Amino acid sequence: MKQADCILCNAFVLTMDDAYHAYPRGAVALSGPTIAAVGEEAELRREWQAAEVVDCGGRVLMPGLVNAHTHVPMTLLRGLTDDRRLDVWLLGYMMPVEREFVSPDFCRLGTLLACAEMIRGGVTCFADMYYFEDAVAAATAEAGMRAVCSQTVLKLPAPDAASYEDSLAEARDFISRWKDHTLITPSVAPHAPYTCTPEILQACAALAVEFDVPLHTHLAETAQEVDEWRTEHGMPVIPWVKKQGLFEAKVLAAHCVHVDEGEINTLKHFSAGVAHCPSSNLKLASGFAPVVSMLEAGLNVGVGTDGPASNNDLDMFEELRLTTFIAKAISRDPTALPARDTLALGTRLGARALHIGDRIGSVEPGKRADLILLDLEGVHSWPPFERDADSIYSRVIYSAKSTDVTDVMVDGRWLMRNSELQTIQLGPLLEAAGEYARSIDRFLLAREGSVLSKLIAIGGAEQEESYEVQLKVHIDDASAVLRALESGSVQVTRKAHYHEYDTYFSFGGSEPERLRHREDEFIDPSGNVFNVRYRLTLTGPAKEGEYPNSVLLSRSRFIAPAKHSLRFYREYFKPTAESEVTKDRLRWLISYQGEEFYVNIDRVTQPVLPGFYIEIKARTWSRRDAEAKAALITELLATLGLQGAAPVTQEYAELTAPGQE
Amino acid sequence: MKQADCILCNAFVLTMDDAYHAYPRGAVALSGPTIAAVGEEAELRREWQAAEVVDCGGRVLMPGLVNAHTHVPMTLLRGLTDDRRLDVWLLGYMMPVEREFVSPDFCRLGTLLACAEMIRGGVTCFADMYYFEDAVAAATAEAGMRAVCSQTVLKLPAPDAASYEDSLAEARDFISRWKDHTLITPSVAPHAPYTCTPEILQACAALAVEFDVPLHTHLAETAQEVDEWRTEHGMPVIPWVKKQGLFEAKVLAAHCVHVDEGEINTLKHFSAGVAHCPSSNLKLASGFAPVVSMLEAGLNVGVGTDGPASNNDLDMFEELRLTTFIAKAISRDPTALPARDTLALGTRLGARALHIGDRIGSVEPGKRADLILLDLEGVHSWPPFERDADSIYSRVIYSAKSTDVTDVMVDGRWLMRNSELQTIQLGPLLEAAGEYARSIDRFLLAREGSVLSKLIAIGGAEQEESYEVQLKVHIDDASAVLRALESGSVQVTRKAHYHEYDTYFSFGGSEPERLRHREDEFIDPSGNVFNVRYRLTLTGPAKEGEYPNSVLLSRSRFIAPAKHSLRFYREYFKPTAESEVTKDRLRWLISYQGEEFYVNIDRVTQPVLPGFYIEIKARTWSRRDAEAKAALITELLATLGLQGAAPVTQEYAELTAPGQE
Repeated sequence: MKQADCILCNAFVLTMDDAYHAYPRGAVALSGPTIAAVGEEAELRREWQAAEVVDCGGRVLMPGLVNAHTHVPMTLLRGLTDDRRLDVWLLGYMMPVEREFVSPDFCRLGTLLACAEMIRGGVTCFADMYYFEDAVAAATAEAGMRAVCSQTVLKLPAPDAASYEDSLAEARDFISRWKDHTLITPSVAPHAPYTCTPEILQACAALAVEFDVPLHTHLAETAQEVDEWRTEHGMPVIPWVKKQGLFEAKVLAAHCVHVDEGEINTLKHFSAGVAHCPSSNLKLASGFAPVVSMLEAGLNVGVGTDGPASNNDLDMFEELRLTTFIAKAISRDPTALPARDTLALGTRLGARALHIGDRIGSVEPGKRADLILLDLEGVHSWPPFERDADSIYSRVIYSAKSTDVTDVMVDGRWLMRNSELQTIQLGPLLEAAGEYARSIDRFLLAREGSVLSKLIAIGGAEQEESYEVQLKVHIDDASAVLRALESGSVQVTRKAHYHEYDTYFSFGGSEPERLRHREDEFIDPSGNVFNVRYRLTLTGPAKEGEYPNSVLLSRSRFIAPAKHSLRFYREYFKPTAESEVTKDRLRWLISYQGEEFYVNIDRVTQPVLPGFYIEIKARTWSRRDAEAKAALITELLATLGLQGAAPVTQEYAELTAPGQE
Repeated sequence: MKQADCILCNAFVLTMDDAYHAYPRGAVALSGPTIAAVGEEAELRREWQAAEVVDCGGRVLMPGLVNAHTHVPMTLLRGLTDDRRLDVWLLGYMMPVEREFVSPDFCRLGTLLACAEMIRGGVTCFADMYYFEDAVAAATAEAGMRAVCSQTVLKLPAPDAASYEDSLAEARDFISRWKDHTLITPSVAPHAPYTCTPEILQACAALAVEFDVPLHTHLAETAQEVDEWRTEHGMPVIPWVKKQGLFEAKVLAAHCVHVDEGEINTLKHFSAGVAHCPSSNLKLASGFAPVVSMLEAGLNVGVGTDGPASNNDLDMFEELRLTTFIAKAISRDPTALPARDTLALGTRLGARALHIGDRIGSVEPGKRADLILLDLEGVHSWPPFERDADSIYSRVIYSAKSTDVTDVMVDGRWLMRNSELQTIQLGPLLEAAGEYARSIDRFLLAREGSVLSKLIAIGGAEQEESYEVQLKVHIDDASAVLRALESGSVQVTRKAHYHEYDTYFSFGGSEPERLRHREDEFIDPSGNVFNVRYRLTLTGPAKEGEYPNSVLLSRSRFIAPAKHSLRFYREYFKPTAESEVTKDRLRWLISYQGEEFYVNIDRVTQPVLPGFYIEIKARTWSRRDAEAKAALITELLATLGLQGAAPVTQEYAELTAPGQE
């Protein structure tokens, strides 16, 4: 007789292996954290003995479910706001609240709550992407769950990093610390093509390759993303990230809603895993992912809940049912994605999508013991038909609920027994979560009347680069500068002439933010207006001061097209003060030492100010890049013959006509 | 102080009235089965007192959910077969099993199981449509639930009626018996346009109007149904049923997946209720109903689970979440159908769709006390945000589960307290259901190799009229009949000439069914073949014998186009015997005394038989109609000068060449 540590018997075993072996009276032998044997109970017990024999009471024993994409700390933001436009939801609520509240403590608490919910619902492994991923990994390991934990990198300032360079460094540290952990597979997560630069994608891919860990990202989630990529880059998202070398790494791509046959083949060619997130895609109206085509192409497609703020739960039973429902409806074929295959997405294929299919995803000798027991005797899954071997899968997918999971084991350790959590004490966690919710409510009530949220509410706003380098000087005569610009000493990319009519709204209050309504009349060489543009720009307070010869600012800056009249905006935003500046502007986009700068020659006509103001400006997502540009500005100033000019530190809205001060 | 029987206090009351009044610390006063008052607890208790005060523990108190369309006894067929084409599912499995097993006992058991599942999931009222509806109503009343119970009427033989006349009579009896019941609203259910005749629809509408009860039906469920209606009737389904006078009654129309703006307006004009069934529509790949447009038009749209054989459960929380998810995805607008409005579909609007919105659907004084308590403190619905008054609806719709319902009251009576059912003892019911499942499995295993299921499996089959009236005679010379037909003594609608090549497969076994492969070469007046048609006809054993001068048969008869070769069918069906009959046929469709008949003049060429066979035939769904036609056949025989001809009772497959007997 062979010796195991434990034998689980009297179970309907669904192995979910490639051949879908199932044993209606089955048993599983465990050696420590590993599955030693699986088969018919009578047969297995002739060969194996163990000190501990667990009677599974005729329940279904199957691999734990794999949640292929989520953001677990967002349990604390569940239901924060719903039924919103994506930009309002993300820019108006999620990101401001995250910037204010997300901390290692927040992530630890949110992760433990998520683990409790997922264990209850039969999930044994998940792929996470968030900030302070070290705290997420630690809490997950504490709860005893398995996860691919991915440290987010993006060009915007994040709760855990002021710049992407910081988050890249943090990702490297994080991966080094966790790379040999039994339960945690560390990973790097360049957030998405539209929140990353090509450099970020390249650096993340290199990091993932260096440590041989997965790279987790969002790809082709919305039609807008794909449309923008086609317009701006002449290709959809998948070939573009391929061009950035992303697929050198073992990619786990969440969503892939808007991908065509060619892109599916590319994903397959590079063995990328896909995380299909149907609830999120429907709730945020992103669309229907072509899951049937992906499976036909042989892709490893898993199913994910996405974060609990956009779902709003972590229920993989719901997610799997939705997966097959949507597949059938979209293909107009009720035989599409039958129950058995759907369960494979939640187990074996999900594990492969996470690039850990060699260790989990099925009940097979040699794999880790990540198992669940499911009670199918509830009135909602009754009666059982046994004529057809697929009936059992049909009951699991079409009628069982997450609340039918009674027992959960990860790596040979019970995390739930008879519906009782073994590793997490919920009471204090729920209390702490309630505290967070009350604080967040207070925070959002306090910013009631926030200009940004009002701006977003009426038409969307796009966040601009967070670092601004600028230098402004005053001169009496602009002819020398003009000559310098035209002389070829700098390379001119573009040139424009316009009349700019700016109206500044300010709001008093604690945040010195300013909303500018700007109307630009573009002037052709004969002096006629040939185009007009209206836009709004909201600037927050600048976070940093002056550098030698220039100013380096870090501040939030949102732009939006202005579709309404100035009167509309005045009534809508109710500014406490208002000022007007009009100017005649000559504007050059130039390239200097390989870097891009804008040069403006402005004559201020209202209030009437003497002379000219010269502005040299650049914006970037990278702090390091900003510093490099600040250094170049001194040189550029000399090149344009402006080294002696008087620097001006006030912004235009702060300038007043002579004699008015 | 006013006196109530019971006060429910310490509840977050969602009234779901038209103004969506909600009381975070609310209370409800009950007088017997009726709601006496609702409001802020402190205020209400200053005005009301009661012997019994129930502490709701801070749970959500809201109207019970209304399941607007289902077939409750089909709990016993849940998971019988899944992931099948609709025709295979319906014709190959559901209908044969229903014909064999559905009885008052089956319906009573299935209904009690369904009630147990729905009470657990917070449903207090449902709209049912099935057979033996008297048993459904009795079991529902026994369980203490509220329902609109609809007796099915259709042209096909049903488990509870050999003909539609029988089911109409049963519907009338049923409605008379139940029309004054507190909990049960009886109703009549013409099954669907494609399973009814215009006469059935008209008779059902008249019956519903006579008793002022709702009329429950399936409308525009599949694209195929609508396409067929456009082709055959030159209009879609809604205007066609309007033409039949269906909307004279208070209609509850299930599905309405494929309806356009005009049809939505028609439904609104006649105050029809709609039952939207998203799980069923997705799982059977029927499509996406335009719920947002229906609501914009002001329609009363409820949400239904449909029968548990096509869902596979009765979980209204899942159904409501799916309703808003699909609405958002289809309209590409994440703000579509917000949580609060979605919950209205499951309560107030659902009640109105069932035409009982005056009595239930909201927590308002004067309405019946159909209430549920919902525990939102589970980890999956935590934490609570309270800044926004809509957050509570978001938690109910996006994160709560049916298993969070703890208490259910219908008509002032508790049906569940602290998650314990009060009126249903589940144990014996589950056991009896298991017995049914085993019997059904045995039945289906025994019919393995059924010709019908094999026919359906490869390409669908359409059931033809069940009653056949036919008379066949043999004559030596056909010229007199030919003259009679051409003389104008009968009115000829259509005439055709073809060579018919029939191959009959028979299968031995207990069921003397016969499958005919038929190839018709259509002959033009110059004797050339101008068209060929291939089809299969499967006939079951005839159930009735001869009438004077004619034969009245009742038997199942399925036709299907034959897309494959005869060789294919021979190999696929493996007949135990095969015979061939070819004939030259002249065929007339004639009208006699306002009734339609086919007259065939056949010369049998293989086996070579002398003389001519004359067939007079008609088919109908109505037994009464069949009898009337049988009587006319004697007259017709005389009109065609055939009164003395020798009657032939054998079918063509049974005729043999002279000397071969």
